[in-house]
Amino acid sequence: MEVRTPMIVVNMKAYEEVNGEGGLKIAKTCEEVAKELTEEKELSIVVCPPQVSLAWIAAQVEIPCFAQHVDAVEPGSHTGAVTLESIKAAGAVGTLVNHSERRLRIADIDFIVQRARKLQLFTVVCTNNVAVSRAVAALKPYAVAVEPPELIGTGRSVSKVDPAVVEDTVKAVKKVCEDCVVLCGAGITDGDDVRAAIELGADGVLLASGVVKAKDVRAKVLDLTSGL
Amino acid sequence: MEVRTPMIVVNMKAYEEVNGEGGLKIAKTCEEVAKELTEEKELSIVVCPPQVSLAWIAAQVEIPCFAQHVDAVEPGSHTGAVTLESIKAAGAVGTLVNHSERRLRIADIDFIVQRARKLQLFTVVCTNNVAVSRAVAALKPYAVAVEPPELIGTGRSVSKVDPAVVEDTVKAVKKVCEDCVVLCGAGITDGDDVRAAIELGADGVLLASGVVKAKDVRAKVLDLTSGL
Amino acid sequence: MEVRTPMIVVNMKAYEEVNGEGGLKIAKTCEEVAKELTEEKELSIVVCPPQVSLAWIAAQVEIPCFAQHVDAVEPGSHTGAVTLESIKAAGAVGTLVNHSERRLRIADIDFIVQRARKLQLFTVVCTNNVAVSRAVAALKPYAVAVEPPELIGTGRSVSKVDPAVVEDTVKAVKKVCEDCVVLCGAGITDGDDVRAAIELGADGVLLASGVVKAKDVRAKVLDLTSGL
Amino acid sequence: MEVRTPMIVVNMKAYEEVNGEGGLKIAKTCEEVAKELTEEKELSIVVCPPQVSLAWIAAQVEIPCFAQHVDAVEPGSHTGAVTLESIKAAGAVGTLVNHSERRLRIADIDFIVQRARKLQLFTVVCTNNVAVSRAVAALKPYAVAVEPPELIGTGRSVSKVDPAVVEDTVKAVKKVCEDCVVLCGAGITDGDDVRAAIELGADGVLLASGVVKAKDVRAKVLDLTSGL
Repeated sequence: MEVRTPMIVVNMKAYEEVNGEGGLKIAKTCEEVAKELTEEKELSIVVCPPQVSLAWIAAQVEIPCFAQHVDAVEPGSHTGAVTLESIKAAGAVGTLVNHSERRLRIADIDFIVQRARKLQLFTVVCTNNVAVSRAVAALKPYAVAVEPPELIGTGRSVSKVDPAVVEDTVKAVKKVCEDCVVLCGAGITDGDDVRAAIELGADGVLLASGVVKAKDVRAKVLDLTSGL
Repeated sequence: MEVRTPMIVVNMKAYEEVNGEGGLKIAKTCEEVAKELTEEKELSIVVCPPQVSLAWIAAQVEIPCFAQHVDAVEPGSHTGAVTLESIKAAGAVGTLVNHSERRLRIADIDFIVQRARKLQLFTVVCTNNVAVSRAVAALKPYAVAVEPPELIGTGRSVSKVDPAVVEDTVKAVKKVCEDCVVLCGAGITDGDDVRAAIELGADGVLLASGVVKAKDVRAKVLDLTSGL
Repeated sequence: MEVRTPMIVVNMKAYEEVNGEGGLKIAKTCEEVAKELTEEKELSIVVCPPQVSLAWIAAQVEIPCFAQHVDAVEPGSHTGAVTLESIKAAGAVGTLVNHSERRLRIADIDFIVQRARKLQLFTVVCTNNVAVSRAVAALKPYAVAVEPPELIGTGRSVSKVDPAVVEDTVKAVKKVCEDCVVLCGAGITDGDDVRAAIELGADGVLLASGVVKAKDVRAKVLDLTSGL
Repeated sequence: MEVRTPMIVVNMKAYEEVNGEGGLKIAKTCEEVAKELTEEKELSIVVCPPQVSLAWIAAQVEIPCFAQHVDAVEPGSHTGAVTLESIKAAGAVGTLVNHSERRLRIADIDFIVQRARKLQLFTVVCTNNVAVSRAVAALKPYAVAVEPPELIGTGRSVSKVDPAVVEDTVKAVKKVCEDCVVLCGAGITDGDDVRAAIELGADGVLLASGVVKAKDVRAKVLDLTSGL
């Protein structure tokens, strides 16, 4: 499964709305929009289903599915752990790493990024500021996604409220790791927020409630992609 | 989905063998054996698939599926978390709790046990000794599964090597919580181990590598159930 | 060092006010009040200094000092860990365990309680509700301290706002472990709150900001002890 | 308190030997040797006492004392936490960060390094390989200490067994953060190991059992410093 920039990554988190059929429906809607749009422009819409729905949803859609989190362990005797190998077998093509709601130890981020590279899985490592973005870039993940924690879930978009953090992250990351994709997140809710992010040099956005809680998911995803 | 005692709970852990089709095949084999046997005797074979395969496997078998672990949070903004609500929507009917490879804080075990009860999900809380079993029983979970950590994965069965821990756990748990099911685990590999467990008063067993690593899973499960 | 009931346990937490000389001064004041009062009545005032001040303060006062937290490990290669052996050598006579700001895994609470007993150290295990108090009592610690987390630091005292949780905890704990001391905490600020706790059957209270943030620590401690 | 390179950092960990008087004696011996040597050469011997002895030992020696670990929190309502402010008030001048036995989340390492800088405390951030060292250097701590976990406590010194990891870490760190001090650790036991480290470009070493378990601590420390 190809993953192209610019991209929109929809993190379904553990919201009530995405359990069971709810998450599948969002994934299907994203797939539908992605198919329509990719006839005219390059882009990806990536979905991160609830962890327990990953294989079930990945089997039913043809857009890239990412895990929301993996544990820094090899396959083995680790009850409850989600390995990179298990998400690959489940049909996922990548994973979020170090989300602000699931922060990891730096040695574990390193483990996951290196191992994912060998398994040809994409890693989107979340960070909270420019300094941490620069540090993470040194590990050479597929992407760094900067998300100031104080803006997550607020509807006040990082690309408008704190453009400097996006611009500075793009500069800092590209300096250390030229090929790294840079995403931004926190408070992204519409096409204008996405457009602002792209203009600041980001390769896309990471968002959650903006899509999950939308009354009309299709309209929302269309609006967001209009900003790419 | 009914869950009956005596029972065998197969924890697939994060073994390489259970990723993708591998886990499904084990679940299907357990289902097949369970169907054959339940014509003549009361019993349950419960499977705990890899976390990311839970919905996908639960949709394809008609035996009880449990999660291997859930997080002590309500549905919401918790990236990477597995909620009780999400496993229920995925088709699971219960969950392991506090496995020795995924120990939980006591307030979180309490949260999970109480919330699972409201959602009509079964909880099998793992413990490491008699004292902790007695403590956990006070929270009134569906089942307590005692597993001395030093025997896990050894092939030296708790029911033969350390019968006192099984017997004493049964007594301690039933005194505090008469209706609690008591399982034992660690080193269980064949029907004799299961029989020994039942004779000590346990209502069943919890095992992992014994089944997952078996050359002939069907023969192994049949052997194990012969001890019930 | 003797520890007697009724008791007041002053948890200094990691407040700015208790660093360096600040914590020592509070401990000295508690010592002074304790000496004056114990001429006429049985009681203990226990202090829990900042972790890094434990040996330094314990060397300078003659009232019982407790650690705020210990790690569930034996002495050895554990950088940054606080062992029971280290707090004993530091002059402490006990420790808080499982405070709501430092929740522990149940197997670790069991480890700490059993090992502390062998080392003749007192354990005060904090809990968040009646069910967890009952569970913890089964491990037979020196004391259970129930503290509804939603009241901690509010100034609204558990003994007045939620008397049932105190009364029910006393009953539940004493049923499982007759000799267990029961403390209550959360929102305790004056002698009336202490008196209410004692009347509900508690053997004392656990408090923090009520003392640490007091303008006149001596007056505050005197007021609190008036409720014993 | 001045901290100069080259340096030897003695991490006392949570060994039985360093509880109470034992740790003080080691610190006093290091102080004695440091005083003798600094008349003729520039160097520092830094000690990291058991956490609960920090204030007590720092009050009795005139060499730099570091904490073994701090928590990434501001002063406040954090029972059991060790804040940077508390170690400073205790007389420490720095802290180890992210030791392999106490790995931290990257956002927390960033928090600690930035806050320590404001408080004028030294940070020695431990890492497990070259990639993580490069990442950590981007946060601009006082020092990076690379310690391949598989060599810790083995007596097989990183500077002899795996010289490339030391050399490559020096290069990688200095490229990102010219002023960063680079230490190495794991298996360091004598002056030869130290000499080898210095020749590879390191500014000093971090060790634990080599000193703590030595029969003659004075002779051991003298031997180690001979390699500087």
